[in-house]
Amino acid sequence: MHFADELIGRIRELGHPLCVGLDPHLELIPASFRKGSMRPEDPETPEVVQAFCLEVIDRLGKRVAVVKPQIALFEQLGWRGLQVLEVLLDRCRSSELSVILDAKRGDIGSTAEGYARAYLEPGARLGVDAITVNPYLGHDSLAPFLERCRSHGRGIFVLVKTSNPGSGDLQDRSLAGTTVFEAVAELLAEDCQRLVGPDTGWSSLGVVVGANHPDQAERVRRRLPEALFLVPGFGAQGAGAEQAVRGFRSGPRGREGGIVSSSRAILFPESPAWESGFEAALGEAIDRLGEAIR
Amino acid sequence: MHFADELIGRIRELGHPLCVGLDPHLELIPASFRKGSMRPEDPETPEVVQAFCLEVIDRLGKRVAVVKPQIALFEQLGWRGLQVLEVLLDRCRSSELSVILDAKRGDIGSTAEGYARAYLEPGARLGVDAITVNPYLGHDSLAPFLERCRSHGRGIFVLVKTSNPGSGDLQDRSLAGTTVFEAVAELLAEDCQRLVGPDTGWSSLGVVVGANHPDQAERVRRRLPEALFLVPGFGAQGAGAEQAVRGFRSGPRGREGGIVSSSRAILFPESPAWESGFEAALGEAIDRLGEAIR
Repeated sequence: MHFADELIGRIRELGHPLCVGLDPHLELIPASFRKGSMRPEDPETPEVVQAFCLEVIDRLGKRVAVVKPQIALFEQLGWRGLQVLEVLLDRCRSSELSVILDAKRGDIGSTAEGYARAYLEPGARLGVDAITVNPYLGHDSLAPFLERCRSHGRGIFVLVKTSNPGSGDLQDRSLAGTTVFEAVAELLAEDCQRLVGPDTGWSSLGVVVGANHPDQAERVRRRLPEALFLVPGFGAQGAGAEQAVRGFRSGPRGREGGIVSSSRAILFPESPAWESGFEAALGEAIDRLGEAIR
Repeated sequence: MHFADELIGRIRELGHPLCVGLDPHLELIPASFRKGSMRPEDPETPEVVQAFCLEVIDRLGKRVAVVKPQIALFEQLGWRGLQVLEVLLDRCRSSELSVILDAKRGDIGSTAEGYARAYLEPGARLGVDAITVNPYLGHDSLAPFLERCRSHGRGIFVLVKTSNPGSGDLQDRSLAGTTVFEAVAELLAEDCQRLVGPDTGWSSLGVVVGANHPDQAERVRRRLPEALFLVPGFGAQGAGAEQAVRGFRSGPRGREGGIVSSSRAILFPESPAWESGFEAALGEAIDRLGEAIR
């Protein structure tokens, strides 16, 4: 098993790189699911989140390759939130959905090892296929995650250029001849090459590059030709399909080399009937991305 | 209530700035507590971690002002780990110990809001006094945490210069006339001033600066005169007491302006009898730090 080979194989079959973000924002969960005041500490809230997310997962069926749960929105429910996440991960597994846990973890030594055990170790209760990680602590902080990529076929996505307004505060700062985000990309180059899959040539070491930064995506791509791009910010955050796939490369069935994530626009459509709104938003996102890569 | 005022007040009473890291490394837990094979997924493991940590908390009594649980080591136990953490936080509260959760979270917009709700909101099940955060995503990613400092008297410690070998990979890179870690410090200056406490003049926006980087600590101190320093790496990671308090300033009862964290050397002493080893290591750490600040 190799994370990137499996994911790209599935994306080629489906013809689109859409990843659905499982971000259960309490205030946006549709009325038909809600119970009580939906405060994080209310005992009914975890049940509602679970019911809503299971409905989403079941509706995704075999139409997308991968989902990305945002762990912060489960953590805000305390341990009951992680209990819900465990149930959802089981359902994803039985639905043959790959899971990238959006956790943006970053720590050192034995603590980084703890996170790697929590999320990338075979048999872990909260085990997933890949996780997002933060590079601020330097290369050695990535070692336990890279070890799971090598030994257990897992994947990681390292934050390089994020989609938020403040992303430039550090990431765009100029270093001698380069920028911080490009320095991060350079730091990853060797491991990225080492983790290339035998079937597709794509690496299990990927990067996060916001959909609203297509020029920066091209600069990252030059430094990391084999990295999968995890591109958030498609849909609700305003970026279009063309922009979102700018860092992709030509593949056997159109442009490939990453996944484009949409959460809010699909999970919480504006249409009054949630079910039909969901179907319409999902279909539209798949169509637009499929067209953009062809 | 103001995080820095309360913490510094307590440290002045006790005469030392020791913070004990609650890092329950499974392979290091003493034999007298262990049950079964102590794998993260074993059902007995969370019970053992809870019993061990409660014993540590109870032995700290009123001898230290603050503890720092490392959330990664609870997350590796899945939702049961967070359930244990909730029990420990309750015990810390009833023991009048401040709690800094070492979580190094960092995310954007509504997701950062989720983390802030999880850990800094009044009434949150996993609510603590302060949390460590990662600055790579920029200033806006800190906003929900800063909001809880302003409204609810909480604190944060932003990673600036960490103690691990790879910390220089990004943090020491040169920008025009400065470095990445100093740029982070500059990014925090305004908020740091705004969050100064009325009683002590110390700010609820603190920073993490490794004990093994005393020169960098001085450079950070020049940029952030009111920031509390959270200094990890005292003891097991090799730095001495003098080095650890290098970034502190003169106060009414000796040098002050931060806390010095030790975990492994206290929790897992080499002495064959855990209880006596723990008492000896705790007493020695308190003495050495008390001496260094006077």
